[in-house]
Amino acid sequence: MPGVGPKSAERMAFHILRLPHSEAKALAYSILKVKESIKFCKVCGNLSEEDLCGICDNPQRDKHIICVVEQPTDIISIEKSGVFRGLYHVLGGSLSPLDGVGPENLRVKELLARVRTRKAEEVIVATDSDSEGETTALYLARLLKKEKIKVTRIAYGLPMGSNLEYADQPTLAKALKGRTPI
Amino acid sequence: MPGVGPKSAERMAFHILRLPHSEAKALAYSILKVKESIKFCKVCGNLSEEDLCGICDNPQRDKHIICVVEQPTDIISIEKSGVFRGLYHVLGGSLSPLDGVGPENLRVKELLARVRTRKAEEVIVATDSDSEGETTALYLARLLKKEKIKVTRIAYGLPMGSNLEYADQPTLAKALKGRTPI
Repeated sequence: MPGVGPKSAERMAFHILRLPHSEAKALAYSILKVKESIKFCKVCGNLSEEDLCGICDNPQRDKHIICVVEQPTDIISIEKSGVFRGLYHVLGGSLSPLDGVGPENLRVKELLARVRTRKAEEVIVATDSDSEGETTALYLARLLKKEKIKVTRIAYGLPMGSNLEYADQPTLAKALKGRTPI
Repeated sequence: MPGVGPKSAERMAFHILRLPHSEAKALAYSILKVKESIKFCKVCGNLSEEDLCGICDNPQRDKHIICVVEQPTDIISIEKSGVFRGLYHVLGGSLSPLDGVGPENLRVKELLARVRTRKAEEVIVATDSDSEGETTALYLARLLKKEKIKVTRIAYGLPMGSNLEYADQPTLAKALKGRTPI
């Protein structure tokens, strides 16, 4: 499991051995249940207990903006920031020819279908800023422009509260190139 | 000295005691010399050995763009990124009413004079993204707009190469609000 080394694993194993039978059973049951009850939202690909996730099912969300992310965990991050009121679309990864991940391995077709049938006005591409994420963003932008839809990319630059002095060079270069009028 | 705790200080002191007399003298002499020979550039306020710093004195730099920074160290950071070919202006800090730092304590008057006499076309405000830096940026923008000059701010958002999952909430919020068309 991620973040669990041999020492922690041993500690966990002994903790389970010391647990009362009922608690160990409850833990085992939860693991089984989560695998059974959690599925993917039919529309956006987010994790969900129902066919539609809580975000797609919420009538108060703005259906005209779709934010494209790589993984369901990205949705949690953006939701925590509390500024986005639109819908999401999970790609399930990013384009990576070296690892054999092409558009057909991601939920790109589903995104196109959504954009066409539901009349989205804007697609925000919030893939990561590594090279795979950037490639994916450019690929999606080219694809979606044919659909006459506004495609935007989240901003890259200095993180909030940071000092110029400690910024790395690619970030500073990006921040200078991406400057905006005030 | 910054970054030097009691242990490191002790180690340095004993290192100096073990040095040959000539080397200790050379070190002491360099400290004296740097204080004597380094002064501030008359135009931009950068550290310099001459009246004009190497950047202001360089005919190949674009005189129409001025990048405003808080400290001379910020110039070093931006120069390392290698994407900026204009001139700089060092404010000498940021507006901080709580610490009693007002516009009269910063090199604001000098900036205005430069903009007026040298016909700059754009001022990029590259102050930090903390609240003092933001306040300073807004103050300068209001002031410079009266001079009919383009004022821009460096971009804030996700740092390059980072993952959405690990971004803090204010940065993610800024990145979403500051999204740009692709």
